[in-house]
Amino acid sequence: MPHTTRIKVRGYHLDLYSHVNNARYLEFLEEARWTLFEERTDLPRYMASGIALIVVNINIDYRYPATMGDELIIESSVKSISNRSAVIHQRVLLAGKDTVVAQADVTMVAFDSQAGRAVPIAGELKSVLESMQEPVAAV
Amino acid sequence: MPHTTRIKVRGYHLDLYSHVNNARYLEFLEEARWTLFEERTDLPRYMASGIALIVVNINIDYRYPATMGDELIIESSVKSISNRSAVIHQRVLLAGKDTVVAQADVTMVAFDSQAGRAVPIAGELKSVLESMQEPVAAV
Amino acid sequence: MPHTTRIKVRGYHLDLYSHVNNARYLEFLEEARWTLFEERTDLPRYMASGIALIVVNINIDYRYPATMGDELIIESSVKSISNRSAVIHQRVLLAGKDTVVAQADVTMVAFDSQAGRAVPIAGELKSVLESMQEPVAAV
Amino acid sequence: MPHTTRIKVRGYHLDLYSHVNNARYLEFLEEARWTLFEERTDLPRYMASGIALIVVNINIDYRYPATMGDELIIESSVKSISNRSAVIHQRVLLAGKDTVVAQADVTMVAFDSQAGRAVPIAGELKSVLESMQEPVAAV
Repeated sequence: MPHTTRIKVRGYHLDLYSHVNNARYLEFLEEARWTLFEERTDLPRYMASGIALIVVNINIDYRYPATMGDELIIESSVKSISNRSAVIHQRVLLAGKDTVVAQADVTMVAFDSQAGRAVPIAGELKSVLESMQEPVAAV
Repeated sequence: MPHTTRIKVRGYHLDLYSHVNNARYLEFLEEARWTLFEERTDLPRYMASGIALIVVNINIDYRYPATMGDELIIESSVKSISNRSAVIHQRVLLAGKDTVVAQADVTMVAFDSQAGRAVPIAGELKSVLESMQEPVAAV
Repeated sequence: MPHTTRIKVRGYHLDLYSHVNNARYLEFLEEARWTLFEERTDLPRYMASGIALIVVNINIDYRYPATMGDELIIESSVKSISNRSAVIHQRVLLAGKDTVVAQADVTMVAFDSQAGRAVPIAGELKSVLESMQEPVAAV
Repeated sequence: MPHTTRIKVRGYHLDLYSHVNNARYLEFLEEARWTLFEERTDLPRYMASGIALIVVNINIDYRYPATMGDELIIESSVKSISNRSAVIHQRVLLAGKDTVVAQADVTMVAFDSQAGRAVPIAGELKSVLESMQEPVAAV
């Protein structure tokens, strides 16, 4: 089961068209990633390590307009890991329904803030990300 | 020349890492698109028409971290138009430099809010979008 | 006991100084007010009534800078009700501590969106707001 | 004449009621204060000084609902200065009209980020703030 975060749509999330604004979804996705890391890792230790996961690409589909009072479920899991980057797949669903509101691939690289450069995804960080991958369904 | 919008990075645009937050860039891109439509179309008439251009996908690369006081130039132009959708290409640059801070393809469809469904991109809307395309460089 | 809402401070809530930005607190307060109304009233019926509580003044003290990872408790209760307006008092506290991060008085008026004008706070709306008042402590 | 900043209301500034959200006004006010300091002070030097003006109170009246396409003028001036704090008065007006959309008093204290404590408003900082005061109208 992927990690899930719940967010209720409020008046300040909406825009001109009374739908959740496209920028706001990126905050919802970030909220879900922090929750994922908080629940599945030693976040304070990660924060103190000086290695940050930095977003380098977001590819997001907006599929269904969420509006006032909708309860959203955000599923987050690691889709792929390479030496250079990891892709987190996130889906925003209407709670209790199959409706996909939005779905995104968020590509992140490990960045050493002291050295000021990207570093390989390896060691403990790689293990943590691997633990967030969905198991391949058995045949 | 593509359409340009200028935005100065302020304290409230930044996040944990003292860089512009990834969600905030989507507001910058939206600001630039409204400015584009305001300057190149009869926006009130478009707003009153009941046909809205709705974002269905954003694919954004974050290339360079903008921070406090940076002056950003956002270039916006129409990259492609089909019967079903149009893609607006947007680049965020540091003013006076070649540094690409972010670049995005924003895919939009025409939505008839009365009918509650997508409609083809045709007629005047298509002409307006075509006028926002960059001319192909002569050989 | 006043109504409480919990919010965890995330990276995107912070600004230049790595503290929660002053505008963001107003979103936290709005979140808490929606939660209050959702839990203590028939919110869909209220939303459908055409009478909205509109904010006409916010007076907010920023007392302590909340930062990454802080867990905030937002207490909300009705402080006073007159014929013309109601004041909601909201306090933002660090969870498990007495530290007051921010406190605000939010003055609201009832607005009839059909008629396009403020209306007296009376009848069921007044009763609902009265039920959100803190009881005066017995001597 | 007070300092002015112009902001055009866009789709992403609105909320449930198709009016600019109350939290967003605080971003507009912050934008105007940064512009004020940028135009009337040596902002990079101020930023480098280690002394920051921190907001400790905002008292804001919401008077008129701004909506899509409205052009706002934000007037900012220093209203009062004491040893401990300064109050910046800001008014949001509809461009070309007398309509007051919102008005706020923003109280700030000087904070020494190295020492971790408030410091008196004195010397050059006081002079700069005094230069932002409106002249008293001659009789």
